Amino acid sequence: MTDRAPFASWLNDTNDVISVFLSAGQIPGLINLGGGLPSPDVWPVEEIAEISGRVVREYPTETMTYSPVPGLPYLRDVLAKRYSTDNVPLTRDNVLVTTGGTQALSLIGQVLLNPGQKIAAQSPTYLGALDAWRPRTPEYQPMILEAADFDPVQDMTGAQFAYTVPNFSNPSGRLVGLEQRKELLAAAQKTGAWLIEDDPYGKLYYDSDPLPTLLELSGDGTPYSGPVIYVGTVSKELAPGLRIGWIIAAPEMIEALATAKQGSDMFSSGVCQMTAAKAYEEGVADNALPRVLALYRARRDALCAALEKHLSDHLTWEKPCGGMFVWAKVKDPAIQTEQLMRRCLDYGVCISPSSVFDPEGKDQSGIRINFTLNTPEKLSEGAKRLADTIRSFD
Amino acid sequence: MTDRAPFASWLNDTNDVISVFLSAGQIPGLINLGGGLPSPDVWPVEEIAEISGRVVREYPTETMTYSPVPGLPYLRDVLAKRYSTDNVPLTRDNVLVTTGGTQALSLIGQVLLNPGQKIAAQSPTYLGALDAWRPRTPEYQPMILEAADFDPVQDMTGAQFAYTVPNFSNPSGRLVGLEQRKELLAAAQKTGAWLIEDDPYGKLYYDSDPLPTLLELSGDGTPYSGPVIYVGTVSKELAPGLRIGWIIAAPEMIEALATAKQGSDMFSSGVCQMTAAKAYEEGVADNALPRVLALYRARRDALCAALEKHLSDHLTWEKPCGGMFVWAKVKDPAIQTEQLMRRCLDYGVCISPSSVFDPEGKDQSGIRINFTLNTPEKLSEGAKRLADTIRSFD
Repeated sequence: MTDRAPFASWLNDTNDVISVFLSAGQIPGLINLGGGLPSPDVWPVEEIAEISGRVVREYPTETMTYSPVPGLPYLRDVLAKRYSTDNVPLTRDNVLVTTGGTQALSLIGQVLLNPGQKIAAQSPTYLGALDAWRPRTPEYQPMILEAADFDPVQDMTGAQFAYTVPNFSNPSGRLVGLEQRKELLAAAQKTGAWLIEDDPYGKLYYDSDPLPTLLELSGDGTPYSGPVIYVGTVSKELAPGLRIGWIIAAPEMIEALATAKQGSDMFSSGVCQMTAAKAYEEGVADNALPRVLALYRARRDALCAALEKHLSDHLTWEKPCGGMFVWAKVKDPAIQTEQLMRRCLDYGVCISPSSVFDPEGKDQSGIRINFTLNTPEKLSEGAKRLADTIRSFD
Repeated sequence: MTDRAPFASWLNDTNDVISVFLSAGQIPGLINLGGGLPSPDVWPVEEIAEISGRVVREYPTETMTYSPVPGLPYLRDVLAKRYSTDNVPLTRDNVLVTTGGTQALSLIGQVLLNPGQKIAAQSPTYLGALDAWRPRTPEYQPMILEAADFDPVQDMTGAQFAYTVPNFSNPSGRLVGLEQRKELLAAAQKTGAWLIEDDPYGKLYYDSDPLPTLLELSGDGTPYSGPVIYVGTVSKELAPGLRIGWIIAAPEMIEALATAKQGSDMFSSGVCQMTAAKAYEEGVADNALPRVLALYRARRDALCAALEKHLSDHLTWEKPCGGMFVWAKVKDPAIQTEQLMRRCLDYGVCISPSSVFDPEGKDQSGIRINFTLNTPEKLSEGAKRLADTIRSFD
């Protein structure tokens, strides 16, 4: 291949950590705490099977042929209604349908980043967002929201946008409090940076009612024209395999994003768009939620109890009040977590190392542990294996 | 919005022609010859409805959760088998599943283009390809395949890749002959440029058997490692609404494209991937083909007869032997086809102007006329309205 035209230079800026843990799924008997997968126990298989067949028969035009680039009006209306509040009245012009949340992030990068421009990103930063923006070769200003001297105005100055996951950030599981949400918004208004609210886990509150979103907090009762670019997805509410996500934002932003979508995949599957629209309309997601919350709450508790039992000498962590992850720091500074991850595979467990959530790939101090995919028994055994792995470094 | 961070600069490089003809669909009574839509009469609605419900029930893991980035092994295997010949033995490692053909082009641009690098593009050039590559801000070297002095080596020198639609190019309807296919391949080998074969219309031969593809011509019986990057799609064989396409190429190229796909939408809908896989396996596409060919052949003949009757004084064209379009030049050099397109809307017909198929947006001499969407009666009436519009310029 050496005599053919070379690949674009951004492709050099990757690491093999991701491919190591993506292929870990093929190791027999491995307990995978490394991914971020919803539990198969809560997939609404029968409902989605029935709806997907039905929508093709009943809506052949919507499902079979080319859809409008920004999405089917039917689904855009369902989503506009679902997110409208007194403070934030939305119409379909505020909604772009995307091919999953990942495409939403990719389109935002295409629309807002010239090569080398700056993103202020909640740190540590969701791996998939870093992947989505890599082809635009951005610079990163980390925002450390828990730091005593965190100054959002300073961090956002000169940035095209700020990236946040206010509800149970991936990877940190952190919930951004109401006061800090208001500070982030004020800083966006002051600096002119757009404010991304990536919200895949917004329904997954296990201990309290949800806080208002940045989108809600930024409305003033008039048609939405605020700085927030809200990203949602069916992946945690219905099924990732539908590959439907959405962006809610000011109409001018939606229009620019639609131009980028036109060149990215033209439109999202009509079959999947109509299936998602009907599933929301018919209450499939809302009806499933109590069971999802009960299952995930029990698994979070089981993982935290197992960490307490097996790993309190080796890790520090906080019990998250929602989402899908526990974020832990390794007490022994001599242990580099990329190496830990690789060795974990020999012990039959997989975790995600902190380096993949660092734009510079350097942070080796932490690990992300998922609790939604596995049963309490497996979570406990996984924690035991992780403890054995850490002790092997002595 | 003036005080917010501005959009990326590539977004300035658009025109409003596309939005004019995309929104033309909403004009009552308009005859749309401007798009490139398959006929609703040949959608396999009942088959796709049945299969899509069935695959969710029978393959919940494949359809409901996250798929591997390069595609479901099941579909990759179906496609590898479908395209394998003695000369070109393929495995799943040669196949990337994409979210339609548009995403395939977008990923190729991400993987092969640093900002400002060169594409050698068959001219006139498919609008959707220009859209897909705009965010990478490429330079274009037009390849005029019908020119007497066409020199593929000269045109491809310094280009990252050459873009071709050998079977019934969009917009020109041109079929690249066997000798010229071999010349294109030889030039790719000599210059090191990759050779894109975009083949949405590969089955739509109305008057003869298909020519061998560039992919077939470039195989040597060993596992495929040639310069061709083949792009296919279900859009003309099953239904655009499934939004499934694919790339067939050397494994190293597939791996790089998968990295780009990971950041673009992570994976394509599992529901749609399994539906496409089963539809191909169960012969839905192959069984539908004779009916599709008969319908489209008759419509091509009807359009060409209507052009002969109403427009021989005003246009020159060649009857295409396949595909979906007639490409015509306006005889009167005073008529600019963007203006013609706009005036056509007042006369109740829509065509595509040549400027949107020119990377520089300048060519005002031609129009693209689609013949697959409308009945012979509407094609005839559309030609009449087009003639009336042209005469109004006198």
